[in-house]
Amino acid sequence: MTARARVPASSSNLGSGFDCIGVAIDRWLVASVTCAAETRGGGGDITVRRHGRLTAVSVPADEDLLVRGFRAACAAARVPAPEGGAIIDAASDIPVGCGLGSSAAAIVAGVLLADAALELNLTRQQVVEIATAIEGHPDNVAPAVYGGAVLSVRTSTGGGLVSTSLNVAADIELLIAVPPFPSDTKAARALLPKMLPHADAVLAASRAAALVQGLATGDGALLSAALDDVLHVPFRRARIPGYDAVVAAAQNAGAFGATLSGAGSAILAIAPGQQSAAVGAAMIAAWRDNGVEAEVITCTSNVAGASVIAAPRTTHHAPLTTHQ
Amino acid sequence: MTARARVPASSSNLGSGFDCIGVAIDRWLVASVTCAAETRGGGGDITVRRHGRLTAVSVPADEDLLVRGFRAACAAARVPAPEGGAIIDAASDIPVGCGLGSSAAAIVAGVLLADAALELNLTRQQVVEIATAIEGHPDNVAPAVYGGAVLSVRTSTGGGLVSTSLNVAADIELLIAVPPFPSDTKAARALLPKMLPHADAVLAASRAAALVQGLATGDGALLSAALDDVLHVPFRRARIPGYDAVVAAAQNAGAFGATLSGAGSAILAIAPGQQSAAVGAAMIAAWRDNGVEAEVITCTSNVAGASVIAAPRTTHHAPLTTHQ
Repeated sequence: MTARARVPASSSNLGSGFDCIGVAIDRWLVASVTCAAETRGGGGDITVRRHGRLTAVSVPADEDLLVRGFRAACAAARVPAPEGGAIIDAASDIPVGCGLGSSAAAIVAGVLLADAALELNLTRQQVVEIATAIEGHPDNVAPAVYGGAVLSVRTSTGGGLVSTSLNVAADIELLIAVPPFPSDTKAARALLPKMLPHADAVLAASRAAALVQGLATGDGALLSAALDDVLHVPFRRARIPGYDAVVAAAQNAGAFGATLSGAGSAILAIAPGQQSAAVGAAMIAAWRDNGVEAEVITCTSNVAGASVIAAPRTTHHAPLTTHQ
Repeated sequence: MTARARVPASSSNLGSGFDCIGVAIDRWLVASVTCAAETRGGGGDITVRRHGRLTAVSVPADEDLLVRGFRAACAAARVPAPEGGAIIDAASDIPVGCGLGSSAAAIVAGVLLADAALELNLTRQQVVEIATAIEGHPDNVAPAVYGGAVLSVRTSTGGGLVSTSLNVAADIELLIAVPPFPSDTKAARALLPKMLPHADAVLAASRAAALVQGLATGDGALLSAALDDVLHVPFRRARIPGYDAVVAAAQNAGAFGATLSGAGSAILAIAPGQQSAAVGAAMIAAWRDNGVEAEVITCTSNVAGASVIAAPRTTHHAPLTTHQ
């Protein structure tokens, strides 16, 4: 079998939904796999051929997230990876390392390709669990799998993960201003304090609740409060040049608020639909004032989740493109 | 003018909604006020006459929460308290000091009586703000005012308070097992640690989000996670004899979970409607095994908020009753 997967980008945290809430974004990783008989060389190697934006990314094969996702899916299903090896072709228009879930998309794509090509029959929640185990947190993985906005929570008993789609009001829009520089996610995570004042934890909990309710209702005051995170942004924002200026510009142009997309470098604003264009322009202008040429991705909340197609073996793929 | 107010009990926190989420409960404080000309003695004194369950409560007049609410409303509206004084008659079937919002109900009643009798024209959100300033947190006050389940969040700018009604699925039920002993709320608050591990704060935020979504959808896994609080219950539960046994009994009888109502002593369970009777019986039995005779209050989420009626001056009140 061969298989082809299409996985969306995602923006996690949305302010106060730290490590638990994310939303699918209309940028895509497309990858296909050809297993066993079609590959030459064999020996169980899984080779990734990068196309488009991914050409610039240089990663050893065993660290490649597509490969890690693929192998983890095999391991979870107790199915051996293809003995003859496999070749994965991947193309993407997701900015890499900017807080748009490029890693999660790659991991999810790897899992889904293994699932489809090797007929593992994984459930979508198993796909989320397997990918989360590699990624470390579910906030990008879950929306990449399910689409839309998703909340993922560890249950009390044994750490199982529950993912649930969140309603998002139709009249709000998400804008993501992406600068041309990446942010080191590991370094951003190392900046978080080990301990937090109890009062801040209480405030953070109320704002996570406000995020769920604000997304569902479009209530501006709730979204404003929810976008003003206290769990991670205060410790990370100084790493992103121009952060305060871009956030202020978004608010002044009519956004309910703005915050880091994931750990940055991109900045996410949520705005009333009719203010969307003005907010995007204001964010670009503010970043330009700081010497940064940013690109704005605008999207509503109804971006689809990952899709995958398995096909009979063939040695000829249609050209990979993210626009399909 | 005279006025009469009817204010519901409330259960706050609901697990992970610490200090921000509460739900109105079908027990009531009813109070009426007669101002100025109708009162004898004058001198601006506000006297409270307690009836029914409240007779047992002994509080100096200036510490009475009805009086504090009344005076705070006057102060907020910059209207002097009645020069001739006032008499407040109050009756209640809300258990006092058990985590059912008896304090919040009294404060709200005081504010509403002043508002109605003195025609202060306060908005409901002003009533919430005034009462919250006395109570210290809005999680009982807001549902007492608005009814149903309510989330209250401090906004980023200057600490304003936003309260919003939460949807609650029709097929879940709230059960509150009330023991005959109170819990000291101040002592319970003093048990909270000053600092918390960042990881716990992150978990707490995800579960507060799960509470909002779980209430709206009735999703058992979300409610289970949401009822398993990490911000306050771990530090308070040892103070309530039988707590672990009652929680376990509720879960074994089919509840999604159970937790302290407010700071206790009552224990709240959330259960599928059809399990409600079994869960209530199991909680009573578990407490009885621990030598405690508890009473169970069962309610859905659509309990109305406070209501108030102003009437022309009269020296004759209808008898006060909480069932009207």
